[in-house]
Amino acid sequence: MLKLCRRYLNWIQNSVFEGELTDVKLKELVSEAKEIMIEEKDSIIIFKSRQEKWLDKMIVGQEKNKLDNII
Amino acid sequence: MLKLCRRYLNWIQNSVFEGELTDVKLKELVSEAKEIMIEEKDSIIIFKSRQEKWLDKMIVGQEKNKLDNII
Repeated sequence: MLKLCRRYLNWIQNSVFEGELTDVKLKELVSEAKEIMIEEKDSIIIFKSRQEKWLDKMIVGQEKNKLDNII
Repeated sequence: MLKLCRRYLNWIQNSVFEGELTDVKLKELVSEAKEIMIEEKDSIIIFKSRQEKWLDKMIVGQEKNKLDNII
């Protein structure tokens, strides 16, 4: 699941990812995720914002993925 | 940290919480969190949306906190 999500998004913390996706790419990601998850047990929660400016991001402490972006 | 966050927010998945907070309450939460976290190591990422309608939520699989809300 980590590998799959990293193909589409940036990993920001534990099981949290962030990124910009088109609707088509999002559908692709969800359908691939459904193949590997157990739908009765696992869950994916997707928060979507149509415009980046509508969502403020605030980081307290360490920004984990600085290194991650370089690798 | 789980206990602290649950005082202010709903726990939705692993280390992810969601809720509506005033700016004052958010500042309170952040300052309490800073007291228990190691700022050089730990991190909290806060996504803020001014209006609920600007943020769509989509759940794939199980909605974990159904039970959590009842308790």
